[in-house]
Amino acid sequence: MDAMTLPTFDDVLAAAARIAPHAHVTPVLRSRTLDALAGCELHFKCEPLQRAGAFKFRGACNAVWSLAPEDAARGVVTHSSGNHGAALALAASTRGIPCHVVVPEGAVAAKLAAIQAYGAILHRCAPSIAAREETAARVQLETGATFVHPYTDPRVIAGQGTAAMELLNATGGLDVLATPVGGGGLASGCALSLAALAPDCELLLAEPAGAADTARSLAAGRLELDFVPDTICDGLRGTLGAPDFAILGAHGARVAVVEDARTIEAMRLLWTRLKLLVEPSSAIAFAAVLAQRERLAGKRVGVLLTGGNVDLDAIAESFASASRAA
Amino acid sequence: MDAMTLPTFDDVLAAAARIAPHAHVTPVLRSRTLDALAGCELHFKCEPLQRAGAFKFRGACNAVWSLAPEDAARGVVTHSSGNHGAALALAASTRGIPCHVVVPEGAVAAKLAAIQAYGAILHRCAPSIAAREETAARVQLETGATFVHPYTDPRVIAGQGTAAMELLNATGGLDVLATPVGGGGLASGCALSLAALAPDCELLLAEPAGAADTARSLAAGRLELDFVPDTICDGLRGTLGAPDFAILGAHGARVAVVEDARTIEAMRLLWTRLKLLVEPSSAIAFAAVLAQRERLAGKRVGVLLTGGNVDLDAIAESFASASRAA
Repeated sequence: MDAMTLPTFDDVLAAAARIAPHAHVTPVLRSRTLDALAGCELHFKCEPLQRAGAFKFRGACNAVWSLAPEDAARGVVTHSSGNHGAALALAASTRGIPCHVVVPEGAVAAKLAAIQAYGAILHRCAPSIAAREETAARVQLETGATFVHPYTDPRVIAGQGTAAMELLNATGGLDVLATPVGGGGLASGCALSLAALAPDCELLLAEPAGAADTARSLAAGRLELDFVPDTICDGLRGTLGAPDFAILGAHGARVAVVEDARTIEAMRLLWTRLKLLVEPSSAIAFAAVLAQRERLAGKRVGVLLTGGNVDLDAIAESFASASRAA
Repeated sequence: MDAMTLPTFDDVLAAAARIAPHAHVTPVLRSRTLDALAGCELHFKCEPLQRAGAFKFRGACNAVWSLAPEDAARGVVTHSSGNHGAALALAASTRGIPCHVVVPEGAVAAKLAAIQAYGAILHRCAPSIAAREETAARVQLETGATFVHPYTDPRVIAGQGTAAMELLNATGGLDVLATPVGGGGLASGCALSLAALAPDCELLLAEPAGAADTARSLAAGRLELDFVPDTICDGLRGTLGAPDFAILGAHGARVAVVEDARTIEAMRLLWTRLKLLVEPSSAIAFAAVLAQRERLAGKRVGVLLTGGNVDLDAIAESFASASRAA
């Protein structure tokens, strides 16, 4: 498949079989207290407990194990300062192949350490999109490694879709599935699963107000990507991918734009009530649900908690700032 | 049973049946990264995911559902500023009976809020042992409620023992079980389960250096309780109970005394790697395992993560202090 071949639900099913020996079927947690607070029936899919601490391992693992042996031997390469880099590094290690990760200067230290701990080779570059694409292209040329884009690669999208499939299976049905949207890999993968398994289930995309390109693009009917991201949700600063836009537009997903302050409140609730360390880019989906209390009253709502790779010192500071502002 | 009738493993089995409709069988998490760090095979029993956020619900629930109907109708009373108060309040609500909780001035605000949210009636008193015992006795006289001590009540000890039984069942066997020790209810309940199900499994008790009465008492062969607690582990500041001492002494448990700085390091690892929000009184058991890397090399080690009811602002401050000191 080339980058603009759109994946289908059959690809999600194939991904589920391919990643089963390597990925966790993550637990679904409930909380009576949070149900009462939200006024609906919440089912939290816990991808912070996925290997490498985020759903990203699903797509990365599917991409790595989709490669023909002769391609696999030359390794994989990506540019990602975050969870996709760590996920691809770990996925490559499950197949014993090299992984190259291009990271911009200034990326979160905890995430870079995780990528290195999984055995990847880091290639640093300037913090611009042009610099990282150029560096990744050079590594491809020099090594013959296969490029695995964090959210436009159809193998990645199909892999992410397994998270929604598992959640639907575990709950026996949902009225709404809330998930964060950044580049759109998870959101569009989930759209494939919902369309096939639960066509009446609403797909609710939570997007930071400081990076609301998906809301604008879906409203305009074309990609509108010209913005400077300004949000605590470091996993959602990327721009919506073209195949992701195509899938989400066809699906008719709804977008909820969320202010960071609401995301931090939701994160605090998830930490203290669910006892799960989620990152801001995860908590935003729950914030979107809390903001739509009336509309979602009494419904069965799945919330995809996507990752738990936080920089504790930075998060502690964000709680302190929120307290001072209150 | 009166307070000095020692419970047996039969009581643990009866407790397991009694609490099954109300308590969660909590998950057991693994982490390849933490295994590598500790040099052994770790099995984390996740009681932060228990109802009311701690193992305490097991003992409280067993006590509440052990009462004869006419006693139950008059309710239960305890003195506890922490997890036992919340657990008893929730347990009482599962049977629809009143719960009175005596709390000292200066107790952690987040824990008091949890106790009230579960429907208990709070009775405030001065922060001394005499004041809280006196207040609890007065409530007993006025209401006819049954007193449920946080860790000397044999019904509580038997209930806590179900945590170790579940962990042994889930893992298929352990060489070592590490658990925190404060008043000793969990530790002695676990000793009952180990003696019956895994007599060769070592019981490793982790105790804060600033409240090391169990280490001193077991070494001396008599209760040595004269100390002023000084530790971040607010759940472990109580003194070892007499029946708990009797059970632990007979069992031959080993005590590891742990400095708070090591506990904070272990807590940070559990938050960032296991993605589970544990309180300091939980993390100490993992700190004890990390401190005995050589002795435990290659062993199958169960770690009882006991609770996750943290005051986020206070914890954020403790991380910041640790960073400044480093």
